[in-house]
Amino acid sequence: MSNKYKEYQSKMREIADINHAAAVLGWDQEVNLPEKANQIRSQQLATVAGIAHEKFTSDEMGVLLEDLKEDENLDAKEKRNIKLTKKSYDRNTKLPKSFVQEMSGAISESYFAWHKAKDENNFAHYAPKLERLIEFKKKQISYLGVEDHPYDTLLDEYEPEAKTADLEVLFKEVKENLVPFVKQISEAEQVYDAFMFKHFDKDQQWKYSLDLLADIGYDFKAGRQDVSAHPFTTSFGSQDVRVTTRISEENLNEMIWSCIHEGGHALYEQGLPVEEYGLPSGSAISLGIHESQSRLWENNVGRSLPFWKAHYSKIQNAFPEQLKSVDAEGFYKAMNKVEPSLIRTAADELTYHFHVMIRFEIEKAIIEEKVKVKDLPELWNSKYKDYLNVDVPNDSEGVLQDIHWSHGSFGYFPTYSLGSFYAVQFYNQAKKEIPGLEGKIEAGDCSAMLNWLRENIHQYGQQYSADELCMKITGEKLNFKHFMDYAKDKYSGIYGL
Amino acid sequence: MSNKYKEYQSKMREIADINHAAAVLGWDQEVNLPEKANQIRSQQLATVAGIAHEKFTSDEMGVLLEDLKEDENLDAKEKRNIKLTKKSYDRNTKLPKSFVQEMSGAISESYFAWHKAKDENNFAHYAPKLERLIEFKKKQISYLGVEDHPYDTLLDEYEPEAKTADLEVLFKEVKENLVPFVKQISEAEQVYDAFMFKHFDKDQQWKYSLDLLADIGYDFKAGRQDVSAHPFTTSFGSQDVRVTTRISEENLNEMIWSCIHEGGHALYEQGLPVEEYGLPSGSAISLGIHESQSRLWENNVGRSLPFWKAHYSKIQNAFPEQLKSVDAEGFYKAMNKVEPSLIRTAADELTYHFHVMIRFEIEKAIIEEKVKVKDLPELWNSKYKDYLNVDVPNDSEGVLQDIHWSHGSFGYFPTYSLGSFYAVQFYNQAKKEIPGLEGKIEAGDCSAMLNWLRENIHQYGQQYSADELCMKITGEKLNFKHFMDYAKDKYSGIYGL
Repeated sequence: MSNKYKEYQSKMREIADINHAAAVLGWDQEVNLPEKANQIRSQQLATVAGIAHEKFTSDEMGVLLEDLKEDENLDAKEKRNIKLTKKSYDRNTKLPKSFVQEMSGAISESYFAWHKAKDENNFAHYAPKLERLIEFKKKQISYLGVEDHPYDTLLDEYEPEAKTADLEVLFKEVKENLVPFVKQISEAEQVYDAFMFKHFDKDQQWKYSLDLLADIGYDFKAGRQDVSAHPFTTSFGSQDVRVTTRISEENLNEMIWSCIHEGGHALYEQGLPVEEYGLPSGSAISLGIHESQSRLWENNVGRSLPFWKAHYSKIQNAFPEQLKSVDAEGFYKAMNKVEPSLIRTAADELTYHFHVMIRFEIEKAIIEEKVKVKDLPELWNSKYKDYLNVDVPNDSEGVLQDIHWSHGSFGYFPTYSLGSFYAVQFYNQAKKEIPGLEGKIEAGDCSAMLNWLRENIHQYGQQYSADELCMKITGEKLNFKHFMDYAKDKYSGIYGL
Repeated sequence: MSNKYKEYQSKMREIADINHAAAVLGWDQEVNLPEKANQIRSQQLATVAGIAHEKFTSDEMGVLLEDLKEDENLDAKEKRNIKLTKKSYDRNTKLPKSFVQEMSGAISESYFAWHKAKDENNFAHYAPKLERLIEFKKKQISYLGVEDHPYDTLLDEYEPEAKTADLEVLFKEVKENLVPFVKQISEAEQVYDAFMFKHFDKDQQWKYSLDLLADIGYDFKAGRQDVSAHPFTTSFGSQDVRVTTRISEENLNEMIWSCIHEGGHALYEQGLPVEEYGLPSGSAISLGIHESQSRLWENNVGRSLPFWKAHYSKIQNAFPEQLKSVDAEGFYKAMNKVEPSLIRTAADELTYHFHVMIRFEIEKAIIEEKVKVKDLPELWNSKYKDYLNVDVPNDSEGVLQDIHWSHGSFGYFPTYSLGSFYAVQFYNQAKKEIPGLEGKIEAGDCSAMLNWLRENIHQYGQQYSADELCMKITGEKLNFKHFMDYAKDKYSGIYGL
């Protein structure tokens, strides 16, 4: 290994240490923070994150990357690390410091205005701040440069190399295929899920959640679970990947899906190669691929009949009263109930993508300057009527429901759908390659599934792009047909279509 | 405020943010860390602490302090901040970087050797590493410089301005007064404390411990309690001061004393002025003064009859079976049992100081080159026989019992005794100044005590040295007579002398 590359490695690891320290501060803020400490903790977090940013964007780092870019002695993995790091360096250094500071201020203002607007159902309070933030995002696009479509520049931050044109094709298929299928489901006889909303004791749920995480292969020696208001996964290196869950005593779904979903994210992080710590080759590919891991466990494994044939007796034993008249199949049907609704985060596996599609269409319209901020609520509501056939009663449950825009996260939403679609395509491939996969899952053994993901996805870090990885594993690019076939097959069974 | 001083403030606050981030990492390591994460966490901690050190010892900081040292426009508090920061800067920069790195390596080796030696009761395994570390400490002294006694230079790190000569006088008084008094006690009829060692349920103790902390005034909105192997207090700023406790189901003392002791430390940190964050004026004076705060709550309040007259019914209600035949006075006597023993951390309020005295005498002998490392066990054992009249059965429970020397912490132990002696002197003064203080405590109200500490000690940070503070509050320097009078009065009562 060249000395320059070693220097690069050691700098990247130092920066990773600092970023992970910031992540520990962030985790602790969500899980443990006493109420008076909010302000000082935010300041400490900003200081530590600022130091990592300063080190990463230093001239020294720039020179080093410039030198290494030309180094022909690097092997393929090393070359790709340099290429990706250089891309990220450029992205970070193209923005003038004063611009970054001003945008950071605009984000704070927009976030607080959004919070208040949502609480008070008053979009007008938020609109001017959002408008200002959108101007910053457009300026950001112009600093970073545009190849095909300006929205690509935003997408790239979350889903490197993703293209607006491809997403347009993808969501066109969603519209043409999934929308009519959901209509068909909504006209069929509905599944029974009232027992999911009985009273479920918190401590009993907590105990069960630990079992559930262990059952999918989460390593408690390299992580821990805690409770927080919003479930999340955070990594301080692959030996310490933590998840949080949310428990509702009136809705059993909350704990089950936050556990398996965050567990899926965590399995990816725990599977990244320790020896590539701090480098692209030791990091997740994209939000879409990350989401494919959480959704594969959540939807393809966790919402499947084989999984609950193996695990239902455990949860039934934990809640014998509440579940006494329900069998594994009834439980499976209840958790797969399809029902158009207002709130994205509570949506089922199918209508979820309509929520994403609406946001994608609106974000694109914003960037293409085809809609004004003041007209967003109307546009939002009409799309909810068109695609989901629901009437939005107020903006708090409509256009104000998500935090993302208030943080300046435009281009993030599509990764949620990409994740689910990748998940089906990967899962189908795993079924082909692992003899009797669903039989193993039905026998309570998820290890073959996890090992397949470790081997085909986790071990590579960012050595392949999302596209390349999908091609390498499945022999084709992302193809919505797989998701649609899966949906038709599964839900035709559940709804007797 | 001058611009240079503002610059100094902002640099110090940035460094405090980084140091507090390291403290969060350290707290999490003791309280939450999954077992596979040890190595990566140590690395992350070292990186973050290294950045704080680098920033603090930068040439830029040196120039700034040099300039500010001459600034006549600063007020008294500002001047003192600069003076103390400059002292610390000099202390940190006088040591060559290579020396610091080599000593850090020697400490690691010595720590691991100590751990193994203690486990295997094999002092010989540790001796060469300790010997090497002592050579480093002597070299450190020569880098830092000596005024009166070389041991002063070590003391200064923990107890600024403390002098070996004063400690010699102090421990001479301990020897002349406390040793014969303890002998007198040991010949009297012993107190009954067997009920302290019944079975006490962990969860029940935990619940009680939260009450106990709240009862002395600990603010749970600016901190939290967790469980750890060794109880400790850590601060991330005065709005977030955390304590940990240790609970033994076979010994009720563990929880009570770790709670009140760490609670006392935490009350000091919670009382430091928020607006002086990151500056000497927002930090604790010395380990001795810090210990005075923990010991005042532990010994003068927590081991007093008035306190338990107010609180005994609570603990009796928590453990009705175990405590049914014990009254508040019996409980008070049990917790004040005096019994010479082997282990410092388990010692009572009086014999504790013999443990410290022995360590002080040995450390001084080491620095004065009057004892060789290989002869330490023999010296240790003979002093335990002389002062405590106990036979040391093995080195693990003798010279190997404490972690301090293995970490290179020479000069630390005396601060434990200083703390207890200051505590009595402060508490006596508080009794003079607060009408009916013990009556208030007996009525379950500790707030007058806490307010007095806030007002007389906490609010000043390091605006006074330990000596100055003691003089300001009590009108005289630290005087062992106060402790001795307190001991005679209290224990004559308990032992009917």
